[in-house]
Amino acid sequence: MRMRNKPWAEEYLLDHDAIVSIGDERKQQITDWFGNNQPIHIEVGSGMGRFITEMAKHNPHINYIGIERDKNVMIRIVEKAVEQNIENLRLLTLDAEKLPEYFQDGEVSRIYLNFSDPWPKTRHAKRRLTHENFLKLYKQVLAEDGEIHFKTDNQHLFEFSLESMSQFGMKLKNINLDLHTNEPEDNIKTEYEEKFSNRGFRINRLEATFK
Amino acid sequence: MRMRNKPWAEEYLLDHDAIVSIGDERKQQITDWFGNNQPIHIEVGSGMGRFITEMAKHNPHINYIGIERDKNVMIRIVEKAVEQNIENLRLLTLDAEKLPEYFQDGEVSRIYLNFSDPWPKTRHAKRRLTHENFLKLYKQVLAEDGEIHFKTDNQHLFEFSLESMSQFGMKLKNINLDLHTNEPEDNIKTEYEEKFSNRGFRINRLEATFK
Repeated sequence: MRMRNKPWAEEYLLDHDAIVSIGDERKQQITDWFGNNQPIHIEVGSGMGRFITEMAKHNPHINYIGIERDKNVMIRIVEKAVEQNIENLRLLTLDAEKLPEYFQDGEVSRIYLNFSDPWPKTRHAKRRLTHENFLKLYKQVLAEDGEIHFKTDNQHLFEFSLESMSQFGMKLKNINLDLHTNEPEDNIKTEYEEKFSNRGFRINRLEATFK
Repeated sequence: MRMRNKPWAEEYLLDHDAIVSIGDERKQQITDWFGNNQPIHIEVGSGMGRFITEMAKHNPHINYIGIERDKNVMIRIVEKAVEQNIENLRLLTLDAEKLPEYFQDGEVSRIYLNFSDPWPKTRHAKRRLTHENFLKLYKQVLAEDGEIHFKTDNQHLFEFSLESMSQFGMKLKNINLDLHTNEPEDNIKTEYEEKFSNRGFRINRLEATFK
């Protein structure tokens, strides 16, 4: 997601360093940051933040981390978190490549990937968040029974992801090739999901584990 | 596929025992039946037989076996094979459960599953041709680098199959969630596929291996 550059973004985020980190001060300190031992669920690419903030409000006994590398976008998530005073939510501006620098091995219980950039050109395949290079990083930070929950409206990204995960030896479950026809009660829609589902695009979803 | 019962079906098939077998005389004798060592590709559930007969005509250096348990349906495939004098095609009336009785371990190079019965009720899941009980049989008769090629218009059967295969440890590739939007040149349509694709149903396809 691209947004207009906001010159005051960095200052705004630094002012809210209790819930958002744009530097390296939280590296390997994530559990301390929450101050308790609840399970940690992260979303890689949180965009406007509706998904991660709603999940945090619905599940107070889980600690959530929204990861979004664009600081101009991150402001919107911080605003939501501050307005709604969500205690079990923290935010990181971070490239996904750096996950193992921030999280201890096995520290994360679940990773959400929602409507990730499809990077449609073959020469950009390595940038897709379900490329095996990213799967390796997820495996490192995920607990042994940790799960990846992935949804996308992009057919080719979903096909690629099914192949990439299965070739990596992952096990797939709860696959849904048309999420909103029989939408589970607990499905929380991202902003993007609502817009594209309303236009009749099919949403695909899967869960995957490494064991 | 159900067809009206034809009292003369058995007699007709016995009259053509050079290309079709309804008994046990070809058990473990499949390669001998062809009289050469070309790779063997089989289709489990051949229905009206367009797919397997067209594949045989297009690929004379592969030996094809169409398997169809309904003798009344099998007649239609035999008619096609006789009329068109297809030399590299043999037919078996057989339940899929019995594959290892007929084929030697590792004798088959590829298995096609086309528009298999979805058995939508959960209590019938074991009858789906991609249930793990069948995957075990396929693994036994397939060569180590053998492949399963599966296509279906049924969304839930496809979701079930993706999960079943990945949970079994199979690797998936060439997944296509909308086969006819970018139809590969070499795609041969079954009778059923043509009908349902023309009505706008999406066709899903995958390839899977055990190694």
